[in-house]
Amino acid sequence: MSDTVRIGVVGLGRLGRRHAENLARRIAGATLVAAASPVAEERAWAERALNGVATYAGLTELLRHPDLDAVWLVTPTSLHADQVIEAVEAGKHVFCEKPLALDPADCDRAIAAAAGRPEQIVMVGFMRRFDPAYAEAKRLIDEGALGDIVAIRCVSEDPIDPDGFFVRFAPTSGGVFLDCCIHDIDLVRWMLDGVGFSAVAAVGSRIVTPALADCGDVDTASACVAFAGGTIADFYVTRTSHRGYEAAMTIVGSKATLEVGRAIPKLPLTLEQAGRRSVAGQGDFFERFGEAFLLEARAFVAAVRNGGPTPLGLGDAREATRLACAMRAALKVG
Amino acid sequence: MSDTVRIGVVGLGRLGRRHAENLARRIAGATLVAAASPVAEERAWAERALNGVATYAGLTELLRHPDLDAVWLVTPTSLHADQVIEAVEAGKHVFCEKPLALDPADCDRAIAAAAGRPEQIVMVGFMRRFDPAYAEAKRLIDEGALGDIVAIRCVSEDPIDPDGFFVRFAPTSGGVFLDCCIHDIDLVRWMLDGVGFSAVAAVGSRIVTPALADCGDVDTASACVAFAGGTIADFYVTRTSHRGYEAAMTIVGSKATLEVGRAIPKLPLTLEQAGRRSVAGQGDFFERFGEAFLLEARAFVAAVRNGGPTPLGLGDAREATRLACAMRAALKVG
Amino acid sequence: MSDTVRIGVVGLGRLGRRHAENLARRIAGATLVAAASPVAEERAWAERALNGVATYAGLTELLRHPDLDAVWLVTPTSLHADQVIEAVEAGKHVFCEKPLALDPADCDRAIAAAAGRPEQIVMVGFMRRFDPAYAEAKRLIDEGALGDIVAIRCVSEDPIDPDGFFVRFAPTSGGVFLDCCIHDIDLVRWMLDGVGFSAVAAVGSRIVTPALADCGDVDTASACVAFAGGTIADFYVTRTSHRGYEAAMTIVGSKATLEVGRAIPKLPLTLEQAGRRSVAGQGDFFERFGEAFLLEARAFVAAVRNGGPTPLGLGDAREATRLACAMRAALKVG
Amino acid sequence: MSDTVRIGVVGLGRLGRRHAENLARRIAGATLVAAASPVAEERAWAERALNGVATYAGLTELLRHPDLDAVWLVTPTSLHADQVIEAVEAGKHVFCEKPLALDPADCDRAIAAAAGRPEQIVMVGFMRRFDPAYAEAKRLIDEGALGDIVAIRCVSEDPIDPDGFFVRFAPTSGGVFLDCCIHDIDLVRWMLDGVGFSAVAAVGSRIVTPALADCGDVDTASACVAFAGGTIADFYVTRTSHRGYEAAMTIVGSKATLEVGRAIPKLPLTLEQAGRRSVAGQGDFFERFGEAFLLEARAFVAAVRNGGPTPLGLGDAREATRLACAMRAALKVG
Ligand SMILES: NC(=O)c1ccc[n+]([C@@H]2O[C@H](COP(=O)([O-])OP(=O)(O)OC[C@H]3O[C@@H](n4cnc5c(N)ncnc54)[C@H](O)[C@@H]3O)[C@@H](O)[C@H]2O)c1
Ligand SMILES: NC(=O)c1ccc[n+]([C@@H]2O[C@H](COP(=O)([O-])OP(=O)(O)OC[C@H]3O[C@@H](n4cnc5c(N)ncnc54)[C@H](O)[C@@H]3O)[C@@H](O)[C@H]2O)c1
Ligand SMILES: NC(=O)c1ccc[n+]([C@@H]2O[C@H](COP(=O)([O-])OP(=O)(O)OC[C@H]3O[C@@H](n4cnc5c(N)ncnc54)[C@H](O)[C@@H]3O)[C@@H](O)[C@H]2O)c1
Ligand SMILES: NC(=O)c1ccc[n+]([C@@H]2O[C@H](COP(=O)([O-])OP(=O)(O)OC[C@H]3O[C@@H](n4cnc5c(N)ncnc54)[C@H](O)[C@@H]3O)[C@@H](O)[C@H]2O)c1
Repeated sequence: MSDTVRIGVVGLGRLGRRHAENLARRIAGATLVAAASPVAEERAWAERALNGVATYAGLTELLRHPDLDAVWLVTPTSLHADQVIEAVEAGKHVFCEKPLALDPADCDRAIAAAAGRPEQIVMVGFMRRFDPAYAEAKRLIDEGALGDIVAIRCVSEDPIDPDGFFVRFAPTSGGVFLDCCIHDIDLVRWMLDGVGFSAVAAVGSRIVTPALADCGDVDTASACVAFAGGTIADFYVTRTSHRGYEAAMTIVGSKATLEVGRAIPKLPLTLEQAGRRSVAGQGDFFERFGEAFLLEARAFVAAVRNGGPTPLGLGDAREATRLACAMRAALKVG
Repeated sequence: MSDTVRIGVVGLGRLGRRHAENLARRIAGATLVAAASPVAEERAWAERALNGVATYAGLTELLRHPDLDAVWLVTPTSLHADQVIEAVEAGKHVFCEKPLALDPADCDRAIAAAAGRPEQIVMVGFMRRFDPAYAEAKRLIDEGALGDIVAIRCVSEDPIDPDGFFVRFAPTSGGVFLDCCIHDIDLVRWMLDGVGFSAVAAVGSRIVTPALADCGDVDTASACVAFAGGTIADFYVTRTSHRGYEAAMTIVGSKATLEVGRAIPKLPLTLEQAGRRSVAGQGDFFERFGEAFLLEARAFVAAVRNGGPTPLGLGDAREATRLACAMRAALKVG
Repeated sequence: MSDTVRIGVVGLGRLGRRHAENLARRIAGATLVAAASPVAEERAWAERALNGVATYAGLTELLRHPDLDAVWLVTPTSLHADQVIEAVEAGKHVFCEKPLALDPADCDRAIAAAAGRPEQIVMVGFMRRFDPAYAEAKRLIDEGALGDIVAIRCVSEDPIDPDGFFVRFAPTSGGVFLDCCIHDIDLVRWMLDGVGFSAVAAVGSRIVTPALADCGDVDTASACVAFAGGTIADFYVTRTSHRGYEAAMTIVGSKATLEVGRAIPKLPLTLEQAGRRSVAGQGDFFERFGEAFLLEARAFVAAVRNGGPTPLGLGDAREATRLACAMRAALKVG
Repeated sequence: MSDTVRIGVVGLGRLGRRHAENLARRIAGATLVAAASPVAEERAWAERALNGVATYAGLTELLRHPDLDAVWLVTPTSLHADQVIEAVEAGKHVFCEKPLALDPADCDRAIAAAAGRPEQIVMVGFMRRFDPAYAEAKRLIDEGALGDIVAIRCVSEDPIDPDGFFVRFAPTSGGVFLDCCIHDIDLVRWMLDGVGFSAVAAVGSRIVTPALADCGDVDTASACVAFAGGTIADFYVTRTSHRGYEAAMTIVGSKATLEVGRAIPKLPLTLEQAGRRSVAGQGDFFERFGEAFLLEARAFVAAVRNGGPTPLGLGDAREATRLACAMRAALKVG
């Protein structure tokens, strides 16, 4: 392999475009050589915006690009497992956006494919693990600063979306647990070193978005989980936040408690007017995790160049999917 | 009845002493005339500290005090129902500390006794309803400022107690849901105008206090509930807080979200030292709800003087007990 | 003297009414027996609201009230010195609202009168010293927790007043330094144990309230002072705050820094709406210092009953006036 | 000129190294071709860390580098004026770190040199203007959202430095006003569109660092300024902060007040332990203004490529020096 990792991105939607720009400009040691999308305008955008990168209609075509080292999958979740398998079997390193798949069985197929190729890096993109605040929290737990972990409380909020875009997206996304809460599920498992769960419950509301009933989804949910070691966790997730984008976690230990990422302002600006002080929240996950997306990409590239280890492998991604599915199965709506 | 309400307090423990001092000095329109406790030192304290108030060994004796208008019960929870009934049948107005009882059947007995005495005020002391912040939240909901209520998230924390006093207290207190979480349960029901619940789940941890296993209790728990109207609620409750005493609630509406009472400092003082800024939390429920205890007592006294209505009746208290019992029954420990 | 201190209040305006109610109802050991005001409606209010207290047209008449122990002056500042002298010479204990007078010479006359009557308590009402947060700051300084005091930074803000009431009040109030900033001046001198100042400068703005030019006043000012021991202080004071009432202080020591009273919310409520989080500020000094007014009154009453010492004497009040006058003299407007 | 701006950096100290890395890797449209320092180890570092950039012992030598477009001065402040003149006369675009010089006369010499070369960009590095929060504040002022500007309050704090490094640095840095406060001076002038000042006062303390007396400097100072339009400003600056690095500003308008950059945490992490909540502050100006340094460099490069205009010219830098000198002249120590 050349010293520079040659990457092809697949999927140029909301998030794919962002990954493509990062890989093209901001990741030393990597170069973006190809991009794929079935949509002509997306390919036209890539040619224009990404220094004349080669474009293809799909993964199969992109895999034939000469000297390609790695594939970066940012396609709809329902395609992930098959595309991981196809790319792995074509001998490529693979980065795949979260979640790996919508059920454990699909994850297992991808795991089986990767198992035969231990020299290829196959990583799933739970980028929050690369955020400096969550990473520091993990470090503090590991060094014992918090003591035993008693409880972890998670909050993930998407700004309220009056267009209801996510309603159309819901059926293929897997619903609020598999699409949103999955980040916190992965983080909790990471913080707890992968301990297994022993009880799961969840309640949800679709008062704001009744149309979600069609696919059994909710816009706001609360789940609680008991883990084998005696730790509990709860997960609040909503698509109808008035505060803006929010990703927060409270880690309660026997010695100390750590609150991560709560109510981060868009900018450090407080407005005082009419007797009130106010602060704007963040707009979306790009604002909150822009740096984490870069660090995640650098970690993948470093793993490829160093021949491993994988920063975040398929086994963990499978377990996250399994717990999210358990939440979905447990969901009660009032 | 004289214009001033003559009150006898029963129970002079941790909280009873405080109620007695309030009634003796800070409630216009009321006068503390008697106090009861089986403990001689507690009676001696009352004689010394409360202007020579008459003291008795128990409720039965105190009820014979001449011209007594009302009884204020601050006794162990297991005695509440029977004492309410005895005092009601003696023709007294009754204030009873929360919770009314540890199961709905006991509540029903008290309700039956009170039903025959509509002219007597019988009130339960969920003092948080009288806190100006929670009261303002209720007002904003009622005027529609938050829209439909999608979710309510509750936090109640007691400071970590290295002596484990509460462990000895646990068997008779009813456990973490009936003793602590009950406040939030009452508040959520109040905010939602008493709507019924349709699903309940709970997980708990006793990593910090394994001795609680003996009575099936936990020191930290997370419960979630779905209500008939489609609202969800979650309840986090702990006896091992590192932050201090905390009572907080986030009310998520379709139009706006309101956060009540979060991380109130002991004093408005921030210390900067060694590159960190720090703030002390509150020490106990007296610090947080000192004013609410006064307002609650004033509301009782006003109801007695005005001939009603009861600010917070036995029916609500019964439903709070019922939901807390459902949480306890649902509790899973990992 | 009887065991209960019999007090007559003089001045029933904005603040006098509040003091009168406190003395009538909330100060154990004191009883309000008389109230004076030249305004008939104010006297009528007192008779109605204060349990049939005796009323008089002025101080001279009130001093003839039988068995009066103490006089509580809440009159316009320009009257303070003469009224203190008259009351002291009539043999009464005296509480006088801040500032003692608008120039040091008037203060000296009051001091001379009081000097001959050491057995009478003569106290000035800088109530912020009795606020638990400022008091705790003083305690921390005294115990050495902050090290040497390098700088003190003060902020006093009155909510913007569209009616410009304070403009009419400005000529007799002495202006922004003598009327508002005087609280912080007293606090800084207290924190620094009364050390003398060696340099004073001030700048001011009347962009919002040009009418203040008539009496040489400003609505917003910033002053800085060097003290003999090497500490510096700055004072920001405004009558046009958008945040609400604010009284804050940052005490910078060689070991640690303490921030007192910053941005205290009206209630512990955060509203999330339209992507912003907002909190209401406090409305006026009653909200912020309600408890301090009570503690100040209790301290006066205790001093009277114990035969001293005076909690806050005329000497300190004179020095505060002297520094405020120096700021006014130094004021530059751009 | 080629499409890519070829830049030589002069000075590879604390800040120069950072600028060099940015120019070498993070600024599209620019390339770092040369670096100069009289210190051999610094040159060795540059060769190693900056992709084999050419190195020189000083500006004069570096100016002979072939095809150099621009010079980036990060040398001791006392050298700035002469080096700007030398580079300008060599026909180069110039970026010069703040402050331009330690007195207005030196600034004037640089201005005169640049005046004859209007086609060359000559920019001074007040990077805070490029920080998104300060920039948004400027935008809000310009669109009238704050109304007329009544007062601006500035805070700049460096973490307390037990080694007293800055004491040795003080004589050549120009002291606390010219070295630190100069950022806020420039910002205030920018916010106020360059209006002139009419009064200046300052007090300072060296309780923590008495050794500063040798060069007439202080570690903590407070200055206040009246401007021609009626606005006032105050400036607090310290080298002995317990909070960490801090750059904050409160802009008080007739319609609203805006607080910029206050108490930004190092990471969004709150630790709860022993009844206190605490947050770590930022460590230095790199943490706070890392992005601003990049945006500033991009603005310079864009101006060079577009043929102007200069983002931040010598005239403004001269006026900032003039006001800082006025503060130093006015300084009183208690
Ligand atoms: N890490 C995060 O926080 C985060 C955030 C958003 C999305 N995601 C994940 O990223 C993935 C994409 O999400 P999105 O929001 O960008 O969706 P999107 O619908 O905006 O984009 C999907 C892209 O895939 C392309 N595509 C569709 N079918 C394809 C095919 N057969 N072959 C190749 N490309 C095809 C589409 O043209 C489009 O470009 C999802 O798995 C989602 O869960 C992760
Ligand atoms: N509202 C709140 O936030 C809050 C807080 C604490 C306690 N409480 C409630 O108050 C009640 C008392 O709690 P506590 O913490 O003060 O308990 P405690 O054990 O400190 O006090 C109980 C008191 O009851 C007395 N007592 C016991 N048996 C009695 C009897 N037969 N007759 C008369 N008195 C008797 C005891 O001598 C003691 O004085 C409980 O129901 C508890 O749930 C409410
Ligand atoms: N401690 C504080 O924070 C604080 C706050 C507000 C006012 N004050 C001080 O309190 C004093 C009163 O302020 P206010 O805002 O209540 O003013 P106000 O104008 O509202 O009230 C003044 C009162 O004095 C009465 N009065 C006027 N002349 C009198 C006379 N000759 N004899 C008796 N009474 C007379 C008036 O009728 C009125 O009742 C001032 O000295 C002011 O500085 C202190
Ligand atoms: N924008 C900011 O916030 C900020 C922060 C820090 C420093 N600064 C400014 O940056 C400048 C440098 O500060 P620093 O902290 O990096 O100082 P420093 O002392 O760490 O570095 C100075 C550098 O200049 C080099 N140098 C000395 N004499 C030279 C000469 N004759 N020719 C070429 N190079 C020479 C030194 O070898 C060293 O590499 C100062 O003007 C300072 O005010 C600005």
